[in-house]
Amino acid sequence: MSPSSESGTPQHAAAVDPDIKAKNLARLRRIEGQVRGLHRMVEEDRYCPDILVQVASVREALLGVGREVMRNHLDHCAAEAQAEGGEAATAMRDELLDLIFRYLK
Amino acid sequence: MSPSSESGTPQHAAAVDPDIKAKNLARLRRIEGQVRGLHRMVEEDRYCPDILVQVASVREALLGVGREVMRNHLDHCAAEAQAEGGEAATAMRDELLDLIFRYLK
Amino acid sequence: MSPSSESGTPQHAAAVDPDIKAKNLARLRRIEGQVRGLHRMVEEDRYCPDILVQVASVREALLGVGREVMRNHLDHCAAEAQAEGGEAATAMRDELLDLIFRYLK
Amino acid sequence: MSPSSESGTPQHAAAVDPDIKAKNLARLRRIEGQVRGLHRMVEEDRYCPDILVQVASVREALLGVGREVMRNHLDHCAAEAQAEGGEAATAMRDELLDLIFRYLK
Repeated sequence: MSPSSESGTPQHAAAVDPDIKAKNLARLRRIEGQVRGLHRMVEEDRYCPDILVQVASVREALLGVGREVMRNHLDHCAAEAQAEGGEAATAMRDELLDLIFRYLK
Repeated sequence: MSPSSESGTPQHAAAVDPDIKAKNLARLRRIEGQVRGLHRMVEEDRYCPDILVQVASVREALLGVGREVMRNHLDHCAAEAQAEGGEAATAMRDELLDLIFRYLK
Repeated sequence: MSPSSESGTPQHAAAVDPDIKAKNLARLRRIEGQVRGLHRMVEEDRYCPDILVQVASVREALLGVGREVMRNHLDHCAAEAQAEGGEAATAMRDELLDLIFRYLK
Repeated sequence: MSPSSESGTPQHAAAVDPDIKAKNLARLRRIEGQVRGLHRMVEEDRYCPDILVQVASVREALLGVGREVMRNHLDHCAAEAQAEGGEAATAMRDELLDLIFRYLK
């Protein structure tokens, strides 16, 4: 599994743990509802700090999804690349660093 | 406008800029669509780092909403409390610190 | 107090709470020691995750200093600008948003 | 290399890239100087936002050190645990998730 994803066709995970997948789908449904709740709060001119606390809560929930996606990534895709060694392992390492320090911080 | 919001009845903003409100409602509709897009990506077993980059993008968009809510808060609610002075100003200051260093960091 | 600080001469706070100042000076001494501790850990080839946890701890301590600096800012400089109103209040508001969403997040 | 580090004796890295090590030692010396600079700014009652921007800059520099430590960790310690497989790989995976989502976010 090459780590690059700049090409036109979407890439897929080397493997996906069905339990992680089911939980993440349920979480994302809940998060969708939370975003609609935020829409309602803004519509009703709710007190700004209450909206901000809710924004933080949705962002935290998204990070929870990210954590499980990362768990799957480390267990499958990353492990596979490391086993291959050489350039595949180096590319995977760089991609991981980028994810951690650019996207997830 | 007291900063506490622990009571049962939802509190409301001292004033809401109609332009900020319209933009935030539009952003939240877009974010709802992005969350549905994430749901689809998970369903299709898309490559984990691609999902993680998208998680980061939704989280960033939510922070954009938070920034505008904070702008409104500083312009109206916080300004009002500061004008009142005394305990109202102190409570508003503590609430702001909590928002900044606990919820938005 | 104008919020801009791009000019050559360093600007100063409208007022500084002596208690906040003393505590922050003490904290920064401690943080300096923590950074020297990190230097030692790297020198001794300590286990990477132990170094990373310590990096996080120093970053958190710096945020603690930031919180107290922000408390002083809200109590004095920002309050003063808000009382002035007009452009001073607007510039202060924009500077605050920038600090919160660009530097402290 | 077991990932636990709760025992009394400090653990060490499986291997340390000498180039990463030299750069991190230099960075940490610079960061120590930056912290002393912050101490001076507080002492001189410098404008609060200028201090806050500097706090952010030191925190960012520390994250830069963290990034290189993580690079070394992924290249050596983590790779070794993954090669071992079984419990060692699982423990390493959990430790990585914890570092990413608890300490480095």
